[in-house]
Amino acid sequence: MELWYTEKQTPNLGITCKTSKTLHVEQTDYQHLAIIDTVQFGRMLVLDGMVQTTIEDEFVYHEMITHVALNTHPNPRNVLVIGGGDGGAIREIVKHRDVEQATLVEIDRRVVELSREYLPEISCALDNPRVTVRFEDGIRHVRENAGIYDIIIVDSTEPVGPAVELFSSGFYASIYNALKEDGIFVAQTESPFFNSDLIRSCFSKISREFPITKLYLANVPTYPSGLWSFTIGSKKYNPENIDIDRELTYDTRYYSPKIHRGAFILPKFVDDLIRE
Amino acid sequence: MELWYTEKQTPNLGITCKTSKTLHVEQTDYQHLAIIDTVQFGRMLVLDGMVQTTIEDEFVYHEMITHVALNTHPNPRNVLVIGGGDGGAIREIVKHRDVEQATLVEIDRRVVELSREYLPEISCALDNPRVTVRFEDGIRHVRENAGIYDIIIVDSTEPVGPAVELFSSGFYASIYNALKEDGIFVAQTESPFFNSDLIRSCFSKISREFPITKLYLANVPTYPSGLWSFTIGSKKYNPENIDIDRELTYDTRYYSPKIHRGAFILPKFVDDLIRE
Repeated sequence: MELWYTEKQTPNLGITCKTSKTLHVEQTDYQHLAIIDTVQFGRMLVLDGMVQTTIEDEFVYHEMITHVALNTHPNPRNVLVIGGGDGGAIREIVKHRDVEQATLVEIDRRVVELSREYLPEISCALDNPRVTVRFEDGIRHVRENAGIYDIIIVDSTEPVGPAVELFSSGFYASIYNALKEDGIFVAQTESPFFNSDLIRSCFSKISREFPITKLYLANVPTYPSGLWSFTIGSKKYNPENIDIDRELTYDTRYYSPKIHRGAFILPKFVDDLIRE
Repeated sequence: MELWYTEKQTPNLGITCKTSKTLHVEQTDYQHLAIIDTVQFGRMLVLDGMVQTTIEDEFVYHEMITHVALNTHPNPRNVLVIGGGDGGAIREIVKHRDVEQATLVEIDRRVVELSREYLPEISCALDNPRVTVRFEDGIRHVRENAGIYDIIIVDSTEPVGPAVELFSSGFYASIYNALKEDGIFVAQTESPFFNSDLIRSCFSKISREFPITKLYLANVPTYPSGLWSFTIGSKKYNPENIDIDRELTYDTRYYSPKIHRGAFILPKFVDDLIRE
């Protein structure tokens, strides 16, 4: 008997993966959570029926949501991740020796606990001495901490359920205040093919708070359309100004200084989206 | 009742689309052909169970397989497309006023006939007076025509069935000979995520024929992984040397001189693939 897991990425489109094992399924206090083994992408974390991360392609998303901001900032010491309970963003952040403190604020303790148990390749840095994990509301956290972070990364689920407020103007204003005077903010902002209204709206809201706002792209096969956007808000440093010949002191599989710059070069329809 | 069309993109991964109508299904002399209406992507052409093109996302593939080579060449007058019976590449080519003659060589007459009937948005330029359509074997065509083309575009299906030889060294040598002394060749070369061996092999074979060989990428949601590669072989002009500020005299939705240059900036794992 073959078992296939199908995510309806939109009401009219799905991705379907042959599975070899279902490891864990539960309804947490915040969302439905499943961990399954797929043949194509290896182990997969699914929240509310949406693929969050897989062993085979997680490197793209986790490298691209972190290293662009971290290499834009000349000296990122104090970094906050909101969401990202699988630990993938944290794993990339601690590769930067400049970082003295990386804080993960995840509302759902079970995501962290189960990622530690079932996804060690992704969660492996959560025990790093420079890392603090807090199980609390990210929105409250940024509201109550002013001017302390060099970088804030919002590694959220889609804007449904508990994540809706993570795409609001009020939240972006709190993020701005929680950053130091040269701080940088980055958030995942969905697919240009299927979420153009969301991208336009996020870009416009973030532009109202930050003097420098840019959109960049990466290719994540398990996300709808395979093309994913990130929006960056920066108080001082332009993320497009990177020395493409700089040497990295750590290994990556997708990120490089060259693709850092290349990721900001947008297909015409995406460029048009944020220029309107 | 809901009907969903599922393509197994690999033995362990599928894309599934809600359909509203099946317009045509037949076994031609060369392949199985279906034309269906999907809710997400509009009308879709399927050959041997693989999505070839859809109304909603065809612009990416057709613009990117044509305009990169056409804008690299300073004066492309005589252009050949092998395969591409839907007419999408031809539609983009005739946007270039320099082009005096565009020849489509498609082995399967039924692809052209049914695209004319069911996909007028894509096939619309096949009746242009500068276009010639020939129903013959592309391999024989390039073997029998030496030194006449400025640009040759291989818009093939995957390397199975009739398309296998379109990925062979002998074919690339014939292409080289069919081009003028400053000619340019481009072929679709599948997904870096799922077809790394094929990309490496094509790149190596094409490098043996052409002094300048480059890989570039575009995002096609209905193709496996969403990330698609093209390999360009050029006798004289470097496709990366484009003036990013040049004005286009025609409309595009994905292509621009900026994305022309950006498409050659590869994620590290793709760059590594062709450097090995």
